[in-house]
Amino acid sequence: MSKPKEIRVGLIGHQFMGKTHSNAFRNAGLWLELPCKVVMRAVCAKDTEANLKKFADNFGWESVETDWHKIVSRDDIDLIDVATPGFLHKDMVIEAAKHGKHVLCEKPLANTLAESEAMLDAVNKAGVRHCCGFSYRSTPSQALAKKFVDEGKLGKIFHVHARYAQDWIVDPDFAMVWRLDKKLAGSGALGDIAAHSIDATRFITGMEFTRVVGNMKTIITERINPENPTGPKAKVTVDDVTNFLSEFDNGATGCYEATRFATGRKNANHIEINGEKGSLMWDFEEHNFLYFFDRTRPVNEQGFTKIIVTENTHPFAGGPWPPGHGIGYGDSFIVEVANFVTAIVENKEFHPDFVDGVKCQQVLEAVEQSANSRQWVEISK
Amino acid sequence: MSKPKEIRVGLIGHQFMGKTHSNAFRNAGLWLELPCKVVMRAVCAKDTEANLKKFADNFGWESVETDWHKIVSRDDIDLIDVATPGFLHKDMVIEAAKHGKHVLCEKPLANTLAESEAMLDAVNKAGVRHCCGFSYRSTPSQALAKKFVDEGKLGKIFHVHARYAQDWIVDPDFAMVWRLDKKLAGSGALGDIAAHSIDATRFITGMEFTRVVGNMKTIITERINPENPTGPKAKVTVDDVTNFLSEFDNGATGCYEATRFATGRKNANHIEINGEKGSLMWDFEEHNFLYFFDRTRPVNEQGFTKIIVTENTHPFAGGPWPPGHGIGYGDSFIVEVANFVTAIVENKEFHPDFVDGVKCQQVLEAVEQSANSRQWVEISK
Amino acid sequence: MSKPKEIRVGLIGHQFMGKTHSNAFRNAGLWLELPCKVVMRAVCAKDTEANLKKFADNFGWESVETDWHKIVSRDDIDLIDVATPGFLHKDMVIEAAKHGKHVLCEKPLANTLAESEAMLDAVNKAGVRHCCGFSYRSTPSQALAKKFVDEGKLGKIFHVHARYAQDWIVDPDFAMVWRLDKKLAGSGALGDIAAHSIDATRFITGMEFTRVVGNMKTIITERINPENPTGPKAKVTVDDVTNFLSEFDNGATGCYEATRFATGRKNANHIEINGEKGSLMWDFEEHNFLYFFDRTRPVNEQGFTKIIVTENTHPFAGGPWPPGHGIGYGDSFIVEVANFVTAIVENKEFHPDFVDGVKCQQVLEAVEQSANSRQWVEISK
Amino acid sequence: MSKPKEIRVGLIGHQFMGKTHSNAFRNAGLWLELPCKVVMRAVCAKDTEANLKKFADNFGWESVETDWHKIVSRDDIDLIDVATPGFLHKDMVIEAAKHGKHVLCEKPLANTLAESEAMLDAVNKAGVRHCCGFSYRSTPSQALAKKFVDEGKLGKIFHVHARYAQDWIVDPDFAMVWRLDKKLAGSGALGDIAAHSIDATRFITGMEFTRVVGNMKTIITERINPENPTGPKAKVTVDDVTNFLSEFDNGATGCYEATRFATGRKNANHIEINGEKGSLMWDFEEHNFLYFFDRTRPVNEQGFTKIIVTENTHPFAGGPWPPGHGIGYGDSFIVEVANFVTAIVENKEFHPDFVDGVKCQQVLEAVEQSANSRQWVEISK
Repeated sequence: MSKPKEIRVGLIGHQFMGKTHSNAFRNAGLWLELPCKVVMRAVCAKDTEANLKKFADNFGWESVETDWHKIVSRDDIDLIDVATPGFLHKDMVIEAAKHGKHVLCEKPLANTLAESEAMLDAVNKAGVRHCCGFSYRSTPSQALAKKFVDEGKLGKIFHVHARYAQDWIVDPDFAMVWRLDKKLAGSGALGDIAAHSIDATRFITGMEFTRVVGNMKTIITERINPENPTGPKAKVTVDDVTNFLSEFDNGATGCYEATRFATGRKNANHIEINGEKGSLMWDFEEHNFLYFFDRTRPVNEQGFTKIIVTENTHPFAGGPWPPGHGIGYGDSFIVEVANFVTAIVENKEFHPDFVDGVKCQQVLEAVEQSANSRQWVEISK
Repeated sequence: MSKPKEIRVGLIGHQFMGKTHSNAFRNAGLWLELPCKVVMRAVCAKDTEANLKKFADNFGWESVETDWHKIVSRDDIDLIDVATPGFLHKDMVIEAAKHGKHVLCEKPLANTLAESEAMLDAVNKAGVRHCCGFSYRSTPSQALAKKFVDEGKLGKIFHVHARYAQDWIVDPDFAMVWRLDKKLAGSGALGDIAAHSIDATRFITGMEFTRVVGNMKTIITERINPENPTGPKAKVTVDDVTNFLSEFDNGATGCYEATRFATGRKNANHIEINGEKGSLMWDFEEHNFLYFFDRTRPVNEQGFTKIIVTENTHPFAGGPWPPGHGIGYGDSFIVEVANFVTAIVENKEFHPDFVDGVKCQQVLEAVEQSANSRQWVEISK
Repeated sequence: MSKPKEIRVGLIGHQFMGKTHSNAFRNAGLWLELPCKVVMRAVCAKDTEANLKKFADNFGWESVETDWHKIVSRDDIDLIDVATPGFLHKDMVIEAAKHGKHVLCEKPLANTLAESEAMLDAVNKAGVRHCCGFSYRSTPSQALAKKFVDEGKLGKIFHVHARYAQDWIVDPDFAMVWRLDKKLAGSGALGDIAAHSIDATRFITGMEFTRVVGNMKTIITERINPENPTGPKAKVTVDDVTNFLSEFDNGATGCYEATRFATGRKNANHIEINGEKGSLMWDFEEHNFLYFFDRTRPVNEQGFTKIIVTENTHPFAGGPWPPGHGIGYGDSFIVEVANFVTAIVENKEFHPDFVDGVKCQQVLEAVEQSANSRQWVEISK
Repeated sequence: MSKPKEIRVGLIGHQFMGKTHSNAFRNAGLWLELPCKVVMRAVCAKDTEANLKKFADNFGWESVETDWHKIVSRDDIDLIDVATPGFLHKDMVIEAAKHGKHVLCEKPLANTLAESEAMLDAVNKAGVRHCCGFSYRSTPSQALAKKFVDEGKLGKIFHVHARYAQDWIVDPDFAMVWRLDKKLAGSGALGDIAAHSIDATRFITGMEFTRVVGNMKTIITERINPENPTGPKAKVTVDDVTNFLSEFDNGATGCYEATRFATGRKNANHIEINGEKGSLMWDFEEHNFLYFFDRTRPVNEQGFTKIIVTENTHPFAGGPWPPGHGIGYGDSFIVEVANFVTAIVENKEFHPDFVDGVKCQQVLEAVEQSANSRQWVEISK
């Protein structure tokens, strides 16, 4: 079977993630060499056709759709990218898979574990490639962290300490949005940002969560309804802050916080991993760097080394620019889609895939159960 | 009643804490003005008289004792400083109190909550002043954090995130020491270092813990017995790492890690407190600084401000040197004893006292219970 | 006169700067709203047509040219972007201007002051818009620094301290390249990177250099000739490191280092500006941040504030992503071309222009003269 | 000749440096083991006897003197410590030497090169030990930097970049003090703080300055006379900011700034040294750390390593406390006097000595000459 010469993409969603993905497909070949052409065939979203047209022109999408059933069934599309709120993921993905499309789906994979399992089942049955959009894996620095662990630089891992802190809803006058509605978003800080910490743990260390105990809290329980600002307030039905403790299959322990109420923290996605031979610290606000402590060095020289991950020898060549000229938030999405498209064309396994998405969802669901039951919750393999 | 002209001190213990306290009493008047003379009357420890004499000469103690019952009953001593392993605290403190001595006792106050309550009872009955040695309260920076909260600079507090990380026992060949023996130390990372995070939370925020869920783990379960290196290994009976989640009386949440296995972290005592108006971040490795985020500033100027806490207007005059010339680890003990001696002479309430010690012990005990029962544990008022 | 509906661009150069500019034009409309369409008409470089074609396809250039005389004279091009080594700037720019093209020219504007003046003269005569590519001005953080100075937040400025440090030629086996040949590059660290520090000073503070004294050094004086690796070595004819002191028209002083031999520093472009009311610190390695010290705040709260320049209220909306999701090296070029194209369409003054380029060149030339004469050199207005 | 059993000290000066030295002698034996007893015999200063007595009691000086001629001639004193303004150094030191006293003299050694040479001559003739108080050499971190260079970890050194920045006189209402009067202080930022950068360069690298070009500026030229606040203002006769460039005997270059007008910088004493094999960065505000870049490590792991200099294997055992429990500003003076007293007792060469003081003074004088003549000035060997 010959390799396809092009991958024709259809994107659903044109908000924050719709933009990052559009930018990624548009620039997919500028950094990493692609084995094929990427065709930006169509973008679909619930909006006026004029708005959608403008969005499409701006990013380079050839056509627009307003009904997602149409885009997932178009013959001239190979890959469907689902960048919509979580409650829509399942139907879109399953339908796309049924039509034989490869699927890229934003994280968290779904609003429930059951949904995510159904989605995995669907892509497996359809025999299509699948990607779950844990984009931080595609930063050169987080990829280097994984590489160091794989090379044995940490030895046995003792524990993981992670925090993902934002503050965008601290203001009580910040009005209701879909991300604060459980029906649409599934959960709050948990699925939106703790999901990244969970995936980063699994990705870098290769460890699996075995049990968790969690605490979830809604700090501001109702907010202005933007569609009726002077009317009754809308109920916030998701967690503003989630904490949980964990254990792993190798005996290590974990400690996690995800919050949207850390005043002053904008996108403070932080993880530290401590092992017998060394430690790693990664922080999104400094994502062009990786901190590495090497306990095998002479004592007098030991310390955390701030590695600027921009050399040609670093993952993804350390970015498209010369050493020291770092990348931005949008750039790791370029790596993600470039590598996913390459995996499709070369018919190779790809990660993060829907299995990774389901594994993450298991942890999310266990944390939520634990927060409700006030008990530790086991995670089945 | 006239104020005493001098406070005559007797110290029990001459290891790490014995040294920091000796240094503190020796230099108590060099930084802060004292209302009386401090007389370093006697030091007591289990050692040869020669060793003890050398220690005493070096630090300026006038005499030595090898039996603690003697030092706590000497007529020429006003203040007993207990700087011994935790299992000895109760008897020493109660006996000292019975003899009418004011007492400074290292943290954690005792190995169990019951012991600590008995100690509080004893000092209350004796009507003596008491100090529990949470020395980090005496850094100008942590004191400034409290002042900022008291001034309302944070507003309602949302949550606390704290981690105290060390790595001094990562090496499997590190031999058994008393701090790893539950009978002597009470607990491991929990009582030794989580205790500081618990106290820092209470001190800075004024909030009280209401419930916790914890996880404790011994990573290396047996170690070389230094008294019989080729014989059977000694059992490690304390936690190497402890994590816990908490809730507070005002509805805030907390997330804590204390570990002696964070390879590369030496004394990384870190706390962040997020409130509606601002946030604070304090880290011992940068303890001449306090980080403050002020959400009431114009948006364009908002950010964490790195305040170098060395101005005359800062607590304890920001240290004994000019601005920018920071203090070291030993110096906060000077503030602690200077302020405690002053409280004795001026007959004024002092904090951190044994009530603070008991409050901390309640949390320690609850965390341990929770780690055993795998349940959330309520903390009674 | 109606505004043009599109700006048709021709780029000369396809190396490092050719790539950053291609990326910038390709994505010019994704972040900032453009008043017109940008047409990537042609790219020109000395290379095989096949290579050039591949480059063009990758970035989206419609056509290729191998003779620069052709591209600057094409009727279907409005704007010529010169991203070639310095020795080519003058002829290309003057020729482009003669053909009525607007011109974007990389910095330093030319290899000599005389050349740069001739170029300024040419664009003035032609009445075309001109941009000198000091791209760091287009980071939201450096733009915020300027804004703060303009708002009076620093008051009278006392001094500027800047360092631009790299290490890409520390290895003695690193072979000869055009940037090390004075005939092609004009100078080494001086024109390549000190130029950025000089421009940053002028941009942020508005001050003009009045005199300088400098020191220039070539550390490795000859290198392998890549075209004849076993033959005689090629002479390095530019500075590896340049230092200079300066004075400004308002009485302030300056201190500068530019070096390619700061082992471990990759693109460490750093500037600190101290004034009577406050100070600013900007560092490219943290270019999503600006550090601001405000001496008008209460003493207890004073300190350097680390502003994450990603809010909508910050210059250029703080980047295309939500708060905390920073930009990368390539992104500021997008701002640069977007704003330049906008200035062309709206017929408005634009900075940095060739006047800024000439002002910078005056300082570069004075530093070089000073390094030769071992005297202070005055800079005429 | 048997070693002395005690060293009896006389201190002249009881201001800032008088306090740091008093603290140092008082605690000299607490950290490092001394080969003898240190007797704090007498302190001398121009003050009321009551004030002086209080100072002496506080720090532990046995007696007081108000006439420096008396203290330098007392038979019961072995070591004179001169901690007075610079204009008094020469006479005091020479007189002390004549009486056979060992001498510790604060930096800069004198107000002029001629004075400093006379002082060196005097101690040489008297055959006494001498120390010039460059106290930062006695931080474990700066000592580790020197050790790394001595071990060849940097290889050939390319250049040095140093800045010492303070802001204590930015306020125009800050009144006249002796440090702003050339007759008393010799110079301003130059002798007070650039002297430390000059010494740090010589100490760590072993290189000697061969020529300099400098610029000195008085920003606020007159200030309130504190003895007559409403009368005519006092003239400031020293530099507020000094910059200079340098060359070294091995061909390396240097770039220096010393300023008291860096708003927001309190005691920002910073030096970076770049060599072919590695680089070092030391900053007083983080003086428990040393940053080391090792170019011999695998490229993927290279970066600046933040070494916390608190291990037993580090110089001076990394401080008196366990790893991670850093020292403060006052502590390095303890190392300085402990090592100087040890050198006296063991009759061994000591550094920094008056030769180091004179070498520094040569550079200071050359910078000042250069600032006046606007020429490069050679430094004779």
